[in-house]
Amino acid sequence: MSAGLTKGQETRQRIIAEAAAIFNQRGYEGCSIQAIMDATGLEKGGIYRHFESKEELAAEAFDYAWSIASTKRRHNLDAIPNHADRLKQHIANFVNRSGLAGGCPLLNTAVDSDNGNPVLRDRVRKALRDWQAFLRTILEEGIHAGTIRATIDSASAANHIISSLEGAMLISRIERNDMALRQSLEDLSSHVDSTFRQPTS
Amino acid sequence: MSAGLTKGQETRQRIIAEAAAIFNQRGYEGCSIQAIMDATGLEKGGIYRHFESKEELAAEAFDYAWSIASTKRRHNLDAIPNHADRLKQHIANFVNRSGLAGGCPLLNTAVDSDNGNPVLRDRVRKALRDWQAFLRTILEEGIHAGTIRATIDSASAANHIISSLEGAMLISRIERNDMALRQSLEDLSSHVDSTFRQPTS
Repeated sequence: MSAGLTKGQETRQRIIAEAAAIFNQRGYEGCSIQAIMDATGLEKGGIYRHFESKEELAAEAFDYAWSIASTKRRHNLDAIPNHADRLKQHIANFVNRSGLAGGCPLLNTAVDSDNGNPVLRDRVRKALRDWQAFLRTILEEGIHAGTIRATIDSASAANHIISSLEGAMLISRIERNDMALRQSLEDLSSHVDSTFRQPTS
Repeated sequence: MSAGLTKGQETRQRIIAEAAAIFNQRGYEGCSIQAIMDATGLEKGGIYRHFESKEELAAEAFDYAWSIASTKRRHNLDAIPNHADRLKQHIANFVNRSGLAGGCPLLNTAVDSDNGNPVLRDRVRKALRDWQAFLRTILEEGIHAGTIRATIDSASAANHIISSLEGAMLISRIERNDMALRQSLEDLSSHVDSTFRQPTS
């Protein structure tokens, strides 16, 4: 319970957190209001007092799940001066520091949000853009600092990292083990070293 | 209409094909029986005369969608003798030869099928295994023939290709353009040449 929140705000936050956990495992369409009622112990009216619609709750739950995932993936990065090493730590964080159960909110929400839910779709697109911008910034700062090769296209390199991680997350979800994620960690770490990193002369 | 099918079998096939198109765009949970009724012009009873449940129809629709996608991705591969070139053609087919609207059935079904639908989940897992085995076979035949480096781990290399393509498909779906898929085609083609291909001496 955060200090300074009213009881109503606390309940709203609790609903978002419970919904995010269900939603991230079952997808938007698979997360019923009944499941949120069961998890929170609230009646339907007690939930809809805080949200105008399932769409609004889903959008808030997605943002909450994404914020947890992003925080874990950015853990300890600022302490790493070399930009290639920073990318490698980010990749390792993605694989080793799971956020909510169910894996990556982007993967779990992209398909369902593309089905007539523009509010949720906008949040998903914004989350992807934030992640791309975060990686591009590390790459461009690295190019400026001489730690990343000047020939690297930062937008393409950012998508390379995101594609490999999300695709490996998909395989791991289907196989219910983390082998593909571990392989992706190894492949991407080698790729950062062999292709993105500026060799020290 | 295929020759030799009874009218009932033809109707069943038509329901599967219509359901696959909706299902691949909206996900399993987002594909209502009403949408299939609208697309086929059949009443609910006319649909359930051919399928025991939505689960059974979804499983058949997934197999149909996967079979279309696989056929497109394997197009013209047998004519290519070099195994590295064959992998590159497969990757290009994935990017350039779209199957059903909505993109890859694996991506579109993995999350929803992980939500208490064991029949569909088994089909998705089987589809992934078939794809992995297909790529591993090309790689292992290539190692045997001297076109692929003997140091390549075929299981890991297969997952590398699948991860990049599926993750790029996810980005492309969110961004509603094929830029990430084109980048993945370029990245993977380079990777096949630099890492998997046995250089000719």
